[in-house]
Amino acid sequence: MELHKTLDVCCRFTTGKLLESGLSGYVVGLSGGIDSALSAAIAVRALGAQKLLAVIMPYRLTPSRATEDAISLAKSLGVEYRVIDISPMIDAYFPVSDYALRLRIGNKMARERMSILFDLAQSMSHLVLGTSNRTEIALGYSTWYGDSACSVNPIGQLYKSDVRALAQFLDIPESIRTKAPSAELWHGQTDEGEIGVTYDVLDRLLERILDDGVTSMAMLEKEGFDRPQVSRVVSMINRTSYKRSLPAVVPLGRVPIPDRIQLAE
Amino acid sequence: MELHKTLDVCCRFTTGKLLESGLSGYVVGLSGGIDSALSAAIAVRALGAQKLLAVIMPYRLTPSRATEDAISLAKSLGVEYRVIDISPMIDAYFPVSDYALRLRIGNKMARERMSILFDLAQSMSHLVLGTSNRTEIALGYSTWYGDSACSVNPIGQLYKSDVRALAQFLDIPESIRTKAPSAELWHGQTDEGEIGVTYDVLDRLLERILDDGVTSMAMLEKEGFDRPQVSRVVSMINRTSYKRSLPAVVPLGRVPIPDRIQLAE
Repeated sequence: MELHKTLDVCCRFTTGKLLESGLSGYVVGLSGGIDSALSAAIAVRALGAQKLLAVIMPYRLTPSRATEDAISLAKSLGVEYRVIDISPMIDAYFPVSDYALRLRIGNKMARERMSILFDLAQSMSHLVLGTSNRTEIALGYSTWYGDSACSVNPIGQLYKSDVRALAQFLDIPESIRTKAPSAELWHGQTDEGEIGVTYDVLDRLLERILDDGVTSMAMLEKEGFDRPQVSRVVSMINRTSYKRSLPAVVPLGRVPIPDRIQLAE
Repeated sequence: MELHKTLDVCCRFTTGKLLESGLSGYVVGLSGGIDSALSAAIAVRALGAQKLLAVIMPYRLTPSRATEDAISLAKSLGVEYRVIDISPMIDAYFPVSDYALRLRIGNKMARERMSILFDLAQSMSHLVLGTSNRTEIALGYSTWYGDSACSVNPIGQLYKSDVRALAQFLDIPESIRTKAPSAELWHGQTDEGEIGVTYDVLDRLLERILDDGVTSMAMLEKEGFDRPQVSRVVSMINRTSYKRSLPAVVPLGRVPIPDRIQLAE
């Protein structure tokens, strides 16, 4: 994809969805990572800094570098930002931060952040800007109804490698662009460590499987992909399809509710 | 619809989805209202009481009758239940319960409950059972990513009037069946007061508009529906279509991610 064309589509989409909604701006959660940085930069380029509120929501174990990177990004984009410590809300539910509970606490954090973003959005008549890329959506590498929940996602069809290219194109600070991608849900967590495949390999593999429709293991191996890695990635896609769907509803033969009813006289 | 046939479909769906998932049971939030009572009763009928955990999540302003009704329902169904007070988590975010904030606090409560249900479900390898009926789904009368969020919804194609009929058929206690429907998000809130139309009229109207495809105002008026009420209901359906959809994602020409990839050799 040509960078400036892609960027143009992302910006026009971000503007168009806001106009359609009749609301007045976007709220975005900045983590200090590259995905939320790019979403924010797209919104600012599309609509101007005054249409975006950045919210930075550290937990007490969040590395201070993440918060600092998020704050300096907000400053460099010229957007208003708020820092909201989510520790009191999380601690009220999990009084002890046991390492054995790290996945549960991490998911609770992601949902708390979603809940705060939608609360602020409602209070300001704003929409919530999404920050999930195509790589993580495909793998279901996110918290359902947590970080993947939003109103409008301007980067959801960009692979992680596209995100990196666009972030460089848009001069996102190097500190954000070069750190190891991490959900920062616990100390030492990294995406590539958890997924077991580097993003470079992952994105090339996902493009072949998803976009080119290649599902022959023999062909993928011939192209240099590692069999256990291919199996692992396909299994992640298949296991997480529910995160890319609406909840399953009992089928009683009634029609789906249409998007729009046009009443006639 | 014939009650026992409908119930049979709801039960088989509830069982089937659990089997498909490979998980071990359901978690349901009981509010003391008729919808969650029916969902729970369906799950117990389908799978037995030992496959369901009921979670009762009062806020400090929740009427004690709601909690009492929920507890006595759990006991009469024979299911294990937990009571979790959500006040500490909500108060950590909203230190003051100002009446002017009631809608924001109400939505925060709904999302906190969702977050707790998914946390408990994850900790037990369970699914979250949905409790939204077709009437409220059609009107978008719910908190997005809150009470409408679930894994599997066994009552989502039942109108409120179907819910009432099935609840009676299943001997849900009268105290639950006859109270005024309310999200209980603030004192004095009732569904019919907020929507401005009784459920009886609403369901007959929704059946005509959605299921029979009648969109002629003249015809609806001839059938006895009130013009301002029809306009109001159609406007609610149209304004809330985003709650029945996945988030809008930038279209860059890439294919949607399929539900299942079948690798060949």
